Amino acid sequence: MSSASPEHTMKHHRRPYAGYAARTFLWQVSDDGKVGTIVLNRPERKNPLTFDSYAELRDLFRGLVYATDIKAVVIAGAGGNFCSGGDVHEIIGPLTRMSMPELLDFTRMTGDLVKAMRACPQPVVAAVDGVCAGAGAMLALASDLRLGTPAARTAFLFTRVGLAGADMGACTLLPRVIGQGRASELLYTGRAMSADEGVQWGFFNSLHDGAGLLAAAQALAAQLAAGPTFAHGVTKKLLHQEWNMGVDEAIEAEAEAQAICMQTRDFRRAYEAFVAKRKPVFEGD
Amino acid sequence: MSSASPEHTMKHHRRPYAGYAARTFLWQVSDDGKVGTIVLNRPERKNPLTFDSYAELRDLFRGLVYATDIKAVVIAGAGGNFCSGGDVHEIIGPLTRMSMPELLDFTRMTGDLVKAMRACPQPVVAAVDGVCAGAGAMLALASDLRLGTPAARTAFLFTRVGLAGADMGACTLLPRVIGQGRASELLYTGRAMSADEGVQWGFFNSLHDGAGLLAAAQALAAQLAAGPTFAHGVTKKLLHQEWNMGVDEAIEAEAEAQAICMQTRDFRRAYEAFVAKRKPVFEGD
Amino acid sequence: MSSASPEHTMKHHRRPYAGYAARTFLWQVSDDGKVGTIVLNRPERKNPLTFDSYAELRDLFRGLVYATDIKAVVIAGAGGNFCSGGDVHEIIGPLTRMSMPELLDFTRMTGDLVKAMRACPQPVVAAVDGVCAGAGAMLALASDLRLGTPAARTAFLFTRVGLAGADMGACTLLPRVIGQGRASELLYTGRAMSADEGVQWGFFNSLHDGAGLLAAAQALAAQLAAGPTFAHGVTKKLLHQEWNMGVDEAIEAEAEAQAICMQTRDFRRAYEAFVAKRKPVFEGD
Repeated sequence: MSSASPEHTMKHHRRPYAGYAARTFLWQVSDDGKVGTIVLNRPERKNPLTFDSYAELRDLFRGLVYATDIKAVVIAGAGGNFCSGGDVHEIIGPLTRMSMPELLDFTRMTGDLVKAMRACPQPVVAAVDGVCAGAGAMLALASDLRLGTPAARTAFLFTRVGLAGADMGACTLLPRVIGQGRASELLYTGRAMSADEGVQWGFFNSLHDGAGLLAAAQALAAQLAAGPTFAHGVTKKLLHQEWNMGVDEAIEAEAEAQAICMQTRDFRRAYEAFVAKRKPVFEGD
Repeated sequence: MSSASPEHTMKHHRRPYAGYAARTFLWQVSDDGKVGTIVLNRPERKNPLTFDSYAELRDLFRGLVYATDIKAVVIAGAGGNFCSGGDVHEIIGPLTRMSMPELLDFTRMTGDLVKAMRACPQPVVAAVDGVCAGAGAMLALASDLRLGTPAARTAFLFTRVGLAGADMGACTLLPRVIGQGRASELLYTGRAMSADEGVQWGFFNSLHDGAGLLAAAQALAAQLAAGPTFAHGVTKKLLHQEWNMGVDEAIEAEAEAQAICMQTRDFRRAYEAFVAKRKPVFEGD
Repeated sequence: MSSASPEHTMKHHRRPYAGYAARTFLWQVSDDGKVGTIVLNRPERKNPLTFDSYAELRDLFRGLVYATDIKAVVIAGAGGNFCSGGDVHEIIGPLTRMSMPELLDFTRMTGDLVKAMRACPQPVVAAVDGVCAGAGAMLALASDLRLGTPAARTAFLFTRVGLAGADMGACTLLPRVIGQGRASELLYTGRAMSADEGVQWGFFNSLHDGAGLLAAAQALAAQLAAGPTFAHGVTKKLLHQEWNMGVDEAIEAEAEAQAICMQTRDFRRAYEAFVAKRKPVFEGD
């Protein structure tokens, strides 16, 4: 008999991420190993992205599809700011000298980061304080949930550097979050959205004090990580798949997806807990 | 000559619904016969759904496509609550013991209820008080318009029973109503949306006192039933058809649909009433 | 060598619009020639549209694709109202007597106006005061940005004249701007949206005094016209193209579009200005 049994085949590429050694940002994992926190950590520059950090973030989110431990992700910035976007000297300067194939390599890499954030099964919670600009604003937008502070200023400022508002999926993601008219204003003018606007318009799920922001985001992530995480992955996948599906087709897709979830042990655990009048303990399978 | 003339062929399957004898809920029809009200009526259990009531609701909405009388529908719950969703003992328990084909039969039946609510030409007005949970929240969401009370608590709580937020079309419908970020929070966490959130986020069209809720919903339904109901059916169909259409294609679809409406008698009635400086009386043809 | 060089071929159909002689509305161009303002100008009738003005507006927006000068457009109404929509006597009366092909000619013409507004590269800013009704409401909705006044009353009142809410793209555009539930209410009932609702729901980007409205709209348009206008045209095109695209496909479309923008001189101008610590001067190429 071959050792490449189906089970072995499916599991051999899975591995834990608790010990992941990040190079271009901080990677912190909660005590129970379920919540991974990315901290963009160049506070003296307001945590800009570089070619290297784009690529490492993309690869981390791609790898998290196969993580055996991490069930939710938080993304945050050090020093009171979230992320100032692509660094002017390290990114914009070189871009002005690139050929078209090189430019496309770059724009596809940044887009691949968003694709990877949307494709991993873990819900991603952005913790947004201070400056949240350009590609940084896109990292927040590409997250599933967003917590902010009153000081958060979110600017899709591509137009300020001579570019289109169409960057990393902004023209499809932002209108669905805050509405087409508001998104159009932000993308054409590049002006910052205040924290108050952000929460009133549905960009932020809630606002928190700067001192409590990261803990609030990690608590929300831990709550999700303690839930039926296989089912959360299905929710995320369907929110993605149904983006441009008709209502009837979406309903059929959900009928199939939910039938799959009804065969998980977590569904049975919830039922048995209800009958026994206790709180269910989900295990994600 | 055959008696199966085209006219006869098209009308023989039509019938009035004023006298419809509901088995698993109450069915009340307004004096003029135009507004049908569904009242979910197991108040001691907060009006849960069962296999039988799902199926009967689905069949009623499917039948209403051919109704000769009903022009708008209200859906409400008895005893200060809207609907607590799928009953734990009567539905969730059995589901934990079903095979995959049986599970899919169930999830498709619940999805078919939403499809039927979106496919009937009558606008559906939900009157939501108190508990509005799980499949109950989906009944409200699948309606065209939603009136609430300050006590309404709407929870897409599938995740609490170990399932995905992807149920009956939630992942496509909810983001379009309240925005992608808010919908994501409700679907991942299962937390209840308060009435205030509901009206600020566009889930509820308006809030009313509990005592006046049903009358307000029926008055709104009566107003729609007194309008150009053929045209309302076209509005509903196009809102559905255009869900995943491009802008240009949607514009052409509306050009065709509106040209059809311009050949109705109701369009002429409106013009003649305007010229005569009186209020038009629409008849739905 | 032929004189029909590619450059010549691409430019021969371009022309300035500063001197455009409008027949059915006013056309005013800013001193720098970059902002064109359309003023609907039959104030005694609240600026209704006629067969002629629909056609001229459609043709103007189609022509603006090839304008060598105009970089942003304002659309406004004279005398304290925006636009009362299709004139009852000049449009609705004749429509009641038309054949189906004639009706479709009309509905396609009105739809073509919206298509042309969405297809031109210039951002369109609507300045909405007072009555904004029917096709007038659609002109506002088809604009990229909308400024209003506290007196603005916006009514998608097609249902009041016996027609469907599905007119000129309303069923696809309005839900994306204000949400599906609120759009459904306005389209089924035909009731006016107040200015406060409009700004809270994201229909209006901001409200202004009636006396300052036009100047505010023109200032916003001038700000956009002073920006990277080639890139703005890409933003507008992508907002349109991605209407019914999946997230991943939209991200690839933006990767390609933004790579194109990175080869514009405006991108280099922005970078050089940043390095030199001065404000960039964009030229739109």
